[in-house]
Amino acid sequence: MKKYNVAVVGVGAVGVELLRCLKQRNFPVADLRVFARSAREIEVDKDKYQVEALEGSDPQGIEIALFAGTEGEKGASRMYSKKFIEAGAVVIDNGADFRLEENVPLVVPEANREAIFDHQGLIANPNCTTIQMIAALAGVYKQFGLSRILLTSFQATSGGGKKAAMTLWEETTEVVEQNKDRSFDGLKKKLKKEFSVFSGQIAFNVIPQIGGFTEEDYTSEEWKVVNETHKIFSDENIKISATCARVPVFTSHSEAVYFETEKDADLDEIKKAIRDTEGVVLSSDYKYPFPLDTEGKEPVFVSRVRRDPSVKNSFWLWVVADNLKKGAALNAVQIAEELIKGK
Amino acid sequence: MKKYNVAVVGVGAVGVELLRCLKQRNFPVADLRVFARSAREIEVDKDKYQVEALEGSDPQGIEIALFAGTEGEKGASRMYSKKFIEAGAVVIDNGADFRLEENVPLVVPEANREAIFDHQGLIANPNCTTIQMIAALAGVYKQFGLSRILLTSFQATSGGGKKAAMTLWEETTEVVEQNKDRSFDGLKKKLKKEFSVFSGQIAFNVIPQIGGFTEEDYTSEEWKVVNETHKIFSDENIKISATCARVPVFTSHSEAVYFETEKDADLDEIKKAIRDTEGVVLSSDYKYPFPLDTEGKEPVFVSRVRRDPSVKNSFWLWVVADNLKKGAALNAVQIAEELIKGK
Repeated sequence: MKKYNVAVVGVGAVGVELLRCLKQRNFPVADLRVFARSAREIEVDKDKYQVEALEGSDPQGIEIALFAGTEGEKGASRMYSKKFIEAGAVVIDNGADFRLEENVPLVVPEANREAIFDHQGLIANPNCTTIQMIAALAGVYKQFGLSRILLTSFQATSGGGKKAAMTLWEETTEVVEQNKDRSFDGLKKKLKKEFSVFSGQIAFNVIPQIGGFTEEDYTSEEWKVVNETHKIFSDENIKISATCARVPVFTSHSEAVYFETEKDADLDEIKKAIRDTEGVVLSSDYKYPFPLDTEGKEPVFVSRVRRDPSVKNSFWLWVVADNLKKGAALNAVQIAEELIKGK
Repeated sequence: MKKYNVAVVGVGAVGVELLRCLKQRNFPVADLRVFARSAREIEVDKDKYQVEALEGSDPQGIEIALFAGTEGEKGASRMYSKKFIEAGAVVIDNGADFRLEENVPLVVPEANREAIFDHQGLIANPNCTTIQMIAALAGVYKQFGLSRILLTSFQATSGGGKKAAMTLWEETTEVVEQNKDRSFDGLKKKLKKEFSVFSGQIAFNVIPQIGGFTEEDYTSEEWKVVNETHKIFSDENIKISATCARVPVFTSHSEAVYFETEKDADLDEIKKAIRDTEGVVLSSDYKYPFPLDTEGKEPVFVSRVRRDPSVKNSFWLWVVADNLKKGAALNAVQIAEELIKGK
């Protein structure tokens, strides 16, 4: 079996998860190089990795480069992906920088595996919130079409990076500390401090904003769900909108997804379409997954599939997945796996 | 000004909040009696109350009785409300026992104040989840009608009673304790124990079930939203369904509410209808309330009102309110206030 020279760019929460996924899934790696802003040695699950500095690096010989650095003008993708592509690598980019560009396939393999092969050097990994919803609905879309999607998300802090997840922990321990001599009735749940990572305290709270506010008063995260869904399904006719909120959870996003199918579908057919989708686990009746139980797991967990009795061909489902695995690193590695399998 | 002999029945989370609301709002109380399963003395905000045992008590002379005891066959409402009514009291019942019965008005004053006066001794207070959504939508409904509502809730633990809120605190401190010698990367977030109050660990988790599972695989909480909304608006034509989930928050429910109006409405008209509703506070652009900031406050806080660009006359809003105040005790006291004001 052919082995590939692989690079992982970025060693934050997603970069580390990429290293884990490559190993756990036995991706056929010949040479593995790890890049970040600065050179150093890191340890992941007791494996040591030598990290090279991106600046001045020579990507020659790299065949597949998984980018998980920061986004934006000064982020790794905008600054270095072109150099990697020109040196012959196919870049699979986890960030949002190129997702909506023409000639950049945006891929959830369960939904649009075939798009991978239209790449011109760069393939984009969708947003975490989008990926798990798309995986849950991919089978339904193929069989029945989708005319309408309304998503409400309960997003984990690690979606904002490791520092964001650490913020939840720090705030929680501070609240516990400031109450160590208080009874439950006198609890002081609010911290008096400046908040920098989120717009307020995330411990014991809900924050209905992810990303900045943009068109029509939706956040950038909410528009990602809309625009990426249209692109992945190649279907602008799906009427879709979203409300995205942050909850005090470390890892795994939960989503309440309402959808209407184009063609007639009954509940059993919908469940079958979901159950038959690769990578999706459908809970049996009255069972449902918790974020805490899905952390570190690969599947997209779907539960609470039920019809909306008030409108024909309309349904709800609850979908939970590890936002760092299927929501980011795993989906990127799966794209790489499909890429090397070929058409 | 006439003063009334008032009784509060039950001294759990909602009962205590009833005592607070009566005092804070200067309800014209002549004689106040407090009842619970067993006699005792309790203290609320440094005020002492003598609690009488319900069994064998004589409700003669009580004019308004606010019931906040447990629900079901052996709960205070089913066991004692009839006796209070026969002794001449108007019972305002916070529980679900009688909400859907004919001849029992179910009231959110912002929406259907006039129903109060059709009572035959008992007036029901809706479910917390319903109340804040109805208050947020009352002005919109009156002006434009509602054809469709889809609600997703992020519910606080205190909605399950004081013990449920304490469970969140106990679990959180246990997780902090079991990690006191661990670094963030090695955190053990899951507790190994039996869970009795919720179906699993609520600390750092999301639980997509409130109440038991019932028809069409919805939970009892989700059906409350549907059935109570139909009854309060006297409108069975509203197509409505819900997904209700518990989040690690102590007090104040958050809700993502999607709705479609019957008549044409633009965003400014919708905002005006919400802003003009008594008891509702509409945040200015890009501001939104947190559960932590609304705890102990009376208003229903609405924010993130925006149109769904993909469907005409469709909108989203985010609504947060203290589930023990407007979601329970305050709404009950407001019903009492309207009752004594008269038609």
